[in-house]
Amino acid sequence: MSLSIEMKPIGVIRTPYLTHDEIPIQGKLRPEIEAWVELEKEYETGLSGLQGFSYAILLYYFIDSDRIDLVGPAFLDDEPHGIFSMRSPHRPNHIGLTVVRVKSVSDNIVYFNNVDMIDKTPLLDIKPYVVQFDSFEDGQSGWIDKHFENCEVPVRAVTKG
Amino acid sequence: MSLSIEMKPIGVIRTPYLTHDEIPIQGKLRPEIEAWVELEKEYETGLSGLQGFSYAILLYYFIDSDRIDLVGPAFLDDEPHGIFSMRSPHRPNHIGLTVVRVKSVSDNIVYFNNVDMIDKTPLLDIKPYVVQFDSFEDGQSGWIDKHFENCEVPVRAVTKG
Repeated sequence: MSLSIEMKPIGVIRTPYLTHDEIPIQGKLRPEIEAWVELEKEYETGLSGLQGFSYAILLYYFIDSDRIDLVGPAFLDDEPHGIFSMRSPHRPNHIGLTVVRVKSVSDNIVYFNNVDMIDKTPLLDIKPYVVQFDSFEDGQSGWIDKHFENCEVPVRAVTKG
Repeated sequence: MSLSIEMKPIGVIRTPYLTHDEIPIQGKLRPEIEAWVELEKEYETGLSGLQGFSYAILLYYFIDSDRIDLVGPAFLDDEPHGIFSMRSPHRPNHIGLTVVRVKSVSDNIVYFNNVDMIDKTPLLDIKPYVVQFDSFEDGQSGWIDKHFENCEVPVRAVTKG
């Protein structure tokens, strides 16, 4: 398909993570860390109602990846996995996704927990996390499940470094 | 932020929905419907491992929306909501997101249930749904919760028409 799609950031994500090796593989693993979205002022009215949601889905741009690795190692283990069974940044279109916990919304700022982005990450979208649509407790998580056996968090999950 | 990001579809989503008014607001509400992703052949190796996941997150492009409505009605009700508390297509960057149930993966084709895209929707990414990262049963879903009281599916949720 030859369609070319142009996107532009609608804001920026500000986090305490200045280098990649400090970041947990998913923000849920260090829930005490706080961060915020600075939405461009022109989009501020679009935040109406977000405060009522416990969680939101942030879509953002992996600005530090300049390549596509269709098969490669993951942060959690050294076995090769296909990019569409990983959350690695080295993917076509370089879109990142994290479910974050919404703390508060104030003017054009959204404060949140469950942070796993580097500081100054460009934001592409905010979607409400709808428990009725997005929560599936019963599923298999492929090669990832073995790393979370006995409900323990794997050591390699906490930071990428 | 003046960054401009160019994306291109990595495949196409083929579904039985040829018009918008047949489509449920989320595919989970008509789980018997089947559809498939036709990934561009060049990305086929990236599907390795996806078969082990019960669910995947599809990111796609809302090709039929040519506008941004920062505040507007939702499919579920006529009250105005901010675009970032809705899953409406009329959003900045026009990225759609659905958690789908993976049925099978064969060469460059991914068969799935939980379909809510119109036929020939351009695909931007496939991510594995990781229960440990993405499932939150306990949250509030803002203005949407009232439509699912008593565990009933609202009539207006089943199709957009």
